[in-house]
Amino acid sequence: MGAQRLVVVGGDAAGMSAASQARKRRGPDELEVVAFERGRSTSYSACGIPYWIGGAVTAREHLVSRTPEQHRRNGIDVRVRTEVVAIDVAARKVRARELDGGAEYDEPFDDLVYAAGSIPMRPPVPGIDAPGVYGVQTLDDGEALRAELDGGRVERVVIVGGGYIGLEIAEACRARGLEVTVVDLSATPVGTFDPDVGAFIADAVRALGITLVLSEAVSEIETGPDGRAVAVHTAAGRRLPADLVVLGLGVRPNVALAREAGIPLGTSGGIAVDHLMRTRAPHVWAAGDCVESVHRLSGQRVVVALGTHANKQGRVAGINIGGGYATFPGVIGTAITKVCDLEVARTGLSEREAEEAGYRFVTASVDSTTRAGYFPGAKPIRLKLLAEKRTGQLLGAQIVGREEAAKRIDVLAAAIWNEMGVDEILSLDLAYAPPFAPVWDPVLIAARKAFDAVEADSRR
Amino acid sequence: MGAQRLVVVGGDAAGMSAASQARKRRGPDELEVVAFERGRSTSYSACGIPYWIGGAVTAREHLVSRTPEQHRRNGIDVRVRTEVVAIDVAARKVRARELDGGAEYDEPFDDLVYAAGSIPMRPPVPGIDAPGVYGVQTLDDGEALRAELDGGRVERVVIVGGGYIGLEIAEACRARGLEVTVVDLSATPVGTFDPDVGAFIADAVRALGITLVLSEAVSEIETGPDGRAVAVHTAAGRRLPADLVVLGLGVRPNVALAREAGIPLGTSGGIAVDHLMRTRAPHVWAAGDCVESVHRLSGQRVVVALGTHANKQGRVAGINIGGGYATFPGVIGTAITKVCDLEVARTGLSEREAEEAGYRFVTASVDSTTRAGYFPGAKPIRLKLLAEKRTGQLLGAQIVGREEAAKRIDVLAAAIWNEMGVDEILSLDLAYAPPFAPVWDPVLIAARKAFDAVEADSRR
Repeated sequence: MGAQRLVVVGGDAAGMSAASQARKRRGPDELEVVAFERGRSTSYSACGIPYWIGGAVTAREHLVSRTPEQHRRNGIDVRVRTEVVAIDVAARKVRARELDGGAEYDEPFDDLVYAAGSIPMRPPVPGIDAPGVYGVQTLDDGEALRAELDGGRVERVVIVGGGYIGLEIAEACRARGLEVTVVDLSATPVGTFDPDVGAFIADAVRALGITLVLSEAVSEIETGPDGRAVAVHTAAGRRLPADLVVLGLGVRPNVALAREAGIPLGTSGGIAVDHLMRTRAPHVWAAGDCVESVHRLSGQRVVVALGTHANKQGRVAGINIGGGYATFPGVIGTAITKVCDLEVARTGLSEREAEEAGYRFVTASVDSTTRAGYFPGAKPIRLKLLAEKRTGQLLGAQIVGREEAAKRIDVLAAAIWNEMGVDEILSLDLAYAPPFAPVWDPVLIAARKAFDAVEADSRR
Repeated sequence: MGAQRLVVVGGDAAGMSAASQARKRRGPDELEVVAFERGRSTSYSACGIPYWIGGAVTAREHLVSRTPEQHRRNGIDVRVRTEVVAIDVAARKVRARELDGGAEYDEPFDDLVYAAGSIPMRPPVPGIDAPGVYGVQTLDDGEALRAELDGGRVERVVIVGGGYIGLEIAEACRARGLEVTVVDLSATPVGTFDPDVGAFIADAVRALGITLVLSEAVSEIETGPDGRAVAVHTAAGRRLPADLVVLGLGVRPNVALAREAGIPLGTSGGIAVDHLMRTRAPHVWAAGDCVESVHRLSGQRVVVALGTHANKQGRVAGINIGGGYATFPGVIGTAITKVCDLEVARTGLSEREAEEAGYRFVTASVDSTTRAGYFPGAKPIRLKLLAEKRTGQLLGAQIVGREEAAKRIDVLAAAIWNEMGVDEILSLDLAYAPPFAPVWDPVLIAARKAFDAVEADSRR
């Protein structure tokens, strides 16, 4: 019996994690591993692109954790600049096209990992596909955007969408001294935060000198005589001149190829997978931004495009393909970002998400400091908790603060993961010393206040 | 029926938390609250004293979160400079002595909270009680030590004991430009860390210009003609000249008064309490550094003198006395400190503690960075995990790193609290963005390596 063949579609975090884990467990005589990647790079940090654009990261290669050459040395046959254009599940083969030259060929597989990632959301408005409108999804996207900015002809940038990526790009452009406007449909930026928390983000964004146009929909990208984008129009009639437009609306799973191949999607629009990362098509696995995950609190399927999940999911798929056993037990919506020196983070459900999931809950917000109040360098930190009525189970947490603030979200993520109630959270044995926390850690203070709110509510 | 009376012995964190919580729940017509405090201050941060000595904290009052006057305005009859010299449990009264003037009187109680804190450990060697040998337990101790250092006659300081407080005081004295030597019986400072982690601490201490004398016992404090300490002698024959000696050996529970009163102690030497903070003597509660707690991993009773526990325990006692219901569910040994810019933290059991508790375990150590490796300001972080053989349950964690490193211990503390296995920890949905973590958070990398070690061990 000859070696089996694993084919991987997509050479970033999820795909190459899967390839590497399978490779590690089964030798080349047992398993050939072929990975197709449309771009030039593998295993790079898409999340790092805004910082490369802004200059905090100085070179493209710093964002690459493993090059195609390195993967090849590990026995993975990486084929860059090669796009998979069709998947034949029944015949177990893919159709590949070399982007340089256009040659096409079939590649058979015994197992397939679909890890095609995500694509930027584009509002269905006139001009959205015009030159001068950039997504920031791949390293090659980032390079194109950088080249444009380095060209010196760009003075005014309009970012369509004020989510995480939108704000990171906005800050990066501002760091380059450009005039930056962010347009968003929500009343506050990063709409996955509750509006009271979002207001802090809005202030920090404005303090950077970035113009925020909120609660307005984009209606058109106006193009010039050469067909290039020259302004963004909003439904409210505003015209925002732009030398460059960047899409920061978030992403959607890149599932076109899977859909065509009959690989079933889930209710959320991502590829449906089980906890082993198997799709419902035989011998086809999927991982990364293109799949949906179980949200452990809402019980719903959700698509969360985030490098950390992609890596974990790819690892799980690869271990299982390699004959081991691993599972991906779902997500709870943890996210973090910073705007200038403002740090924000969230985990679990926002108020709106909790309502949609049918929870009844109380909220508690507290203001504290990152270190003992009397200790030099203590910075403000605000925590907001959502706790289920009656049970007190922690449903969500949001943090806004300055340095050393937001990463504290992890302890609340661990608490939510373990379905802890706020009464037990306030007993947690968290680290205390004056340079690190007040004697009541902000997390404990917030839990105490949420517990009081649950108690008060139950007496009503 | 007249008001009942709550008497509190000790006016710091535990005692005043209990007093405040009871006060909050029962009005003055229902409950009188009398609190005796030997010193001049109430509700202060003993943990902040080293930073006041070193100058990072500029004034005594910054360490006081609530003054006697503030407590009095809240309806608590605080009597400072007044020592409780005897407790009559059967007759339900205490004997109080005013330190200024010496007047004595009885004070009856319906409930008593014993919160006498801790006292510095003193090795039983000649000269240990000589003038010039200082403990650092109370604000008044701190003030005396500061006055001595400000006097300008001190050039050489010897610290007996290289635990948390010992090192904090050493760094504070070094910051004042003094010649500092720390003597400790262990092979590495802060013996509650494993020696491999302790080695990093030793390096950081030496880098500050502090002399470390390790693996040596103190045999004598030599006194001069005026009876004042002039040098520390070790059993190995070393003589360390000292203008000032500071005790940094840690503390023991201050239980003399309780023992005399027949309030039962536990096996650890601290006062035995249940999860409501009731002692085994009727109507007597206890909280803070003087009580023992359940260690949730070892199942043993331990005394942990730490402000955060004292506050929680005092709160629990006060709520219960006030007619509410709260419990203190134990500790897991979380601690944190910094030496110059080196941050260290621990939670759960060290290797020695795990062995003593009868666990069989594997260890895994990983080196990572606090931010994405390519992100400016990324600092090294080392994590060490102990996981139980077979089950993979996390038993302990230690972190060494630079800024933004050590407080990550909290997520591991939450994991231990919830009896998580390292396999599940590596699935945790922790916050990821390049300014805050690599795409595999150091906590996840460590869990992954520990999981591999558990797997490898089980195949053996």
